Amino acid sequence: MRIEVNKNILASNAAAAGKNRERLRRHGVFMVNLMASPGAGKTSAIIKAIERAPELKMAVIEGDIASEIDSLTIEAMGITALQINTGGSCHLTASMITSALNYLDLDVLDLIVIENVGNLVCPAEFDLGETARVMIASIAEGDDKPDKYPLMFRQVDLILLNKMDLLPYCDFDLPRFRQVVTTLNPAAPILELSCKENRGVAGWGEWLTGATASTRAAKAAD
Amino acid sequence: MRIEVNKNILASNAAAAGKNRERLRRHGVFMVNLMASPGAGKTSAIIKAIERAPELKMAVIEGDIASEIDSLTIEAMGITALQINTGGSCHLTASMITSALNYLDLDVLDLIVIENVGNLVCPAEFDLGETARVMIASIAEGDDKPDKYPLMFRQVDLILLNKMDLLPYCDFDLPRFRQVVTTLNPAAPILELSCKENRGVAGWGEWLTGATASTRAAKAAD
Repeated sequence: MRIEVNKNILASNAAAAGKNRERLRRHGVFMVNLMASPGAGKTSAIIKAIERAPELKMAVIEGDIASEIDSLTIEAMGITALQINTGGSCHLTASMITSALNYLDLDVLDLIVIENVGNLVCPAEFDLGETARVMIASIAEGDDKPDKYPLMFRQVDLILLNKMDLLPYCDFDLPRFRQVVTTLNPAAPILELSCKENRGVAGWGEWLTGATASTRAAKAAD
Repeated sequence: MRIEVNKNILASNAAAAGKNRERLRRHGVFMVNLMASPGAGKTSAIIKAIERAPELKMAVIEGDIASEIDSLTIEAMGITALQINTGGSCHLTASMITSALNYLDLDVLDLIVIENVGNLVCPAEFDLGETARVMIASIAEGDDKPDKYPLMFRQVDLILLNKMDLLPYCDFDLPRFRQVVTTLNPAAPILELSCKENRGVAGWGEWLTGATASTRAAKAAD
């Protein structure tokens, strides 16, 4: 009974996600779904993207259970930020994103970054219609997260390993982490990052610039 | 429609939780529901509890999406550990705990520690029948977590602020954190902890020992 309900929710979510994806494709807009545990550095990674790819016309969709701290931070940088407060829900859904897209001028945007709710479980199950999925793991969380949350690691296009500055102070086995992640997801690059110390952020900016350019080129070829 | 379904799930969960709580009360067993983000230090806090309160007859119930890493760690210390793999579910439910209790001899136990799935959202909504709720926040997660996950902070009996050893390396405003948490939940003490450096762990052991003794005394007075 409960499984049936969940199936229906996922099916209706998938339909809405498909419409979002088609709408973005028509406009040549690249949309990235950024997922992580609470406090792994999602907002910091968005700030670095804004700094590192200033030529991109960007908007941000912020998902949180409560508060608008993150969208205020982004807006202070002169970037449009839409805040979705999910109330009790532990993940964003495609229809929440549909509503947010209605507030954005897709003809002028290159890139939309969605900051999902801080959670390694359910966001991995809900397609939002994004062009790509990126997750952030943090050194402080420990190297066993891929073992415990395999679905998240399996289905992302890029993994940002943030807080590399904390590596000297944490028991984090970097070769082990890389090995388990590569077994789960051989295709996804792992970028080592320290948003705090501004290390590795150039690669993140380049990845976004490259992916955005491909999406724009695909539209032009249509 | 969906809300109705959720209401039914929560109502049936609450009924099972009530039965668990009554069953534990009859046996004088204290059960704590330990919740936190992925990687905040739940397993480390359990290890410290085992070390600091060796006189308690303890069992551990481990909840994870996948893997049995944590229960193997606990069992290596000579403590019974039951592993629940939730599959896709982002939280434990009362009926999962009912099944686990069937494997334990409640007549000989003083304390059961449940390590919930790493998630600050849904575990806060699902009563397991625990005697008390404890959450772990980590310095590395940042001081804004109470703003973003207020329900979790609001309804716990104790907050362990772990990874104090990382304070010099993180931008964490400790007075601000304490102020926001105290506004949300004036009754819950905040214990500063470093499981890694063995700091503050005596207080955590004393809290468990005291709570366990109260539960036993309440049973004796029945």
